[in-house]
Amino acid sequence: MVDLRRVALDILKPHDPSMLEFTERIAAVESVDGVSTSLIELDQEVQNVKITAEGTSLEYDAIEDVIESLGGTVHSIDQAAYGEYVVEERRTLQDD
Amino acid sequence: MVDLRRVALDILKPHDPSMLEFTERIAAVESVDGVSTSLIELDQEVQNVKITAEGTSLEYDAIEDVIESLGGTVHSIDQAAYGEYVVEERRTLQDD
Amino acid sequence: MVDLRRVALDILKPHDPSMLEFTERIAAVESVDGVSTSLIELDQEVQNVKITAEGTSLEYDAIEDVIESLGGTVHSIDQAAYGEYVVEERRTLQDD
Amino acid sequence: MVDLRRVALDILKPHDPSMLEFTERIAAVESVDGVSTSLIELDQEVQNVKITAEGTSLEYDAIEDVIESLGGTVHSIDQAAYGEYVVEERRTLQDD
Amino acid sequence: MVDLRRVALDILKPHDPSMLEFTERIAAVESVDGVSTSLIELDQEVQNVKITAEGTSLEYDAIEDVIESLGGTVHSIDQAAYGEYVVEERRTLQDD
Amino acid sequence: MVDLRRVALDILKPHDPSMLEFTERIAAVESVDGVSTSLIELDQEVQNVKITAEGTSLEYDAIEDVIESLGGTVHSIDQAAYGEYVVEERRTLQDD
Amino acid sequence: MVDLRRVALDILKPHDPSMLEFTERIAAVESVDGVSTSLIELDQEVQNVKITAEGTSLEYDAIEDVIESLGGTVHSIDQAAYGEYVVEERRTLQDD
Repeated sequence: MVDLRRVALDILKPHDPSMLEFTERIAAVESVDGVSTSLIELDQEVQNVKITAEGTSLEYDAIEDVIESLGGTVHSIDQAAYGEYVVEERRTLQDD
Repeated sequence: MVDLRRVALDILKPHDPSMLEFTERIAAVESVDGVSTSLIELDQEVQNVKITAEGTSLEYDAIEDVIESLGGTVHSIDQAAYGEYVVEERRTLQDD
Repeated sequence: MVDLRRVALDILKPHDPSMLEFTERIAAVESVDGVSTSLIELDQEVQNVKITAEGTSLEYDAIEDVIESLGGTVHSIDQAAYGEYVVEERRTLQDD
Repeated sequence: MVDLRRVALDILKPHDPSMLEFTERIAAVESVDGVSTSLIELDQEVQNVKITAEGTSLEYDAIEDVIESLGGTVHSIDQAAYGEYVVEERRTLQDD
Repeated sequence: MVDLRRVALDILKPHDPSMLEFTERIAAVESVDGVSTSLIELDQEVQNVKITAEGTSLEYDAIEDVIESLGGTVHSIDQAAYGEYVVEERRTLQDD
Repeated sequence: MVDLRRVALDILKPHDPSMLEFTERIAAVESVDGVSTSLIELDQEVQNVKITAEGTSLEYDAIEDVIESLGGTVHSIDQAAYGEYVVEERRTLQDD
Repeated sequence: MVDLRRVALDILKPHDPSMLEFTERIAAVESVDGVSTSLIELDQEVQNVKITAEGTSLEYDAIEDVIESLGGTVHSIDQAAYGEYVVEERRTLQDD
């Protein structure tokens, strides 16, 4: 078994529940140690937010379940780190 | 229960009370350990400021109450961090 | 009581007293531990400088009194940090 | 014998399996200590992802086998570090 | 008494004495612990250099005397730090 | 005797051997402690890569011999560090 | 006596001796602890390189003698640090 230690998600969510309640509910998922959410864009209907969750062994399905139960959808998974520790990516010459 | 540890707010406020008094009043909220405020834009009628508050377990409603009692409005919540520690977001290739 | 720990000011000042004397006088205010001043723009009549003062419990009024007694005016308060420590602001996706 | 300690790959993969499962499967390769995956681009048919794997002595062929068994192809190897430790590259004046 | 701990100067100087001798002479001022000089622009007649001097209690007048005795002129004082320690300035949203 | 501690090379190499084998072979040179290779550009005929090698006392000729025996050519030496330790270059005002 | 601790030079040199031999020869100067050289530009006739030398008490004349004995010329001295330690320059608002 390999552990998911960090995941960054691009999420579309309705205005209600608020970004705070939304984040708090994800942070309340048992495998989650902490969550940071950043506002990307604010629309009349939806909010586009970036969510970064960390834990020793994240249960992604439980995270996604909470997101969807709150009316949100995962637009894309932007980053994922599995293993004994979080491998930090370095900028390569191909990223420029 | 999950703790709110940091929150960054985009605020519109009247010129009076001053940015200093405004910040001091938020910092005086019981759950708040520290607050930094930065001026974003200065208008004839209003000031647009960014407020970052930290604490072990922030009570957001009390913070918002103070902001509104001083004539300010929360334009948007730009960042929120819940959990056992503040998860630092990394720039993803999607942020560029 | 909540302590003001750092403040960054945008100041307009005459050429006399010099930037050094001006800074020294602010640093001599009792609650101030240190001050750094940077030149923003140099005009024929005035200097536009950015002043950053730190202390355990800054008395802002005493700082402003010194600035005004030296012919300077506070154009804007650009940053203020209150609390038990200086909260460092992170760049949000809204700052870009 | 010289050890491969870090490798960064530019990968094209189908949407199924998901980026999470894809990453988890690479992280499960015996010589791999950790893997981080970042989304570069999302297409209707394929996902373009950047994968960074670390280990004390990575077996690259086993990593590539897993990638290909999941329908992915290595578009390019963007970085590789061999030796007793990971040599960090510095930006040279030629990189600008 | 408040101590000047760091000062950054924009200097115009003739080609002779050389930047090395010029810097060495400033570093030899008693209150100065160290000086770094950077070339800003090279003209046929003059050199424009940036000088940063540090010390526990810098005597600015002695520094300026040496600069002028070597044919240099202080075009502007770009930064000055007074107090018990050097306050590091943070970039504010107004600096962008 | 002065020791070469780090060298960064701009290399043109054929597609075969692969970037991994190419890097591994350089890392296998006796004086080399570690090597990182980054892809700069991918052509139909050749790969342009940046190679950074570190060691306590690198034998450059042995490194170049391996590169050439694998069909590669050193297009340029972009950085070299000799001495008791690796001197880190600072950006000067002339680099901008 | 004040010590020169770091100097950064903009050098024009012929292709022969190579950048490696050129750097090694400077690093062999007695007062020099380490030297890093970076390629700025490659011409048919000359190489333009940036050389950074460090030592407890650098003898600049001996460094320049070696450079000139190898056919190089010092185009400009870009940075020099004298004193008890190397003063690190901070970016001022005037550098932007």
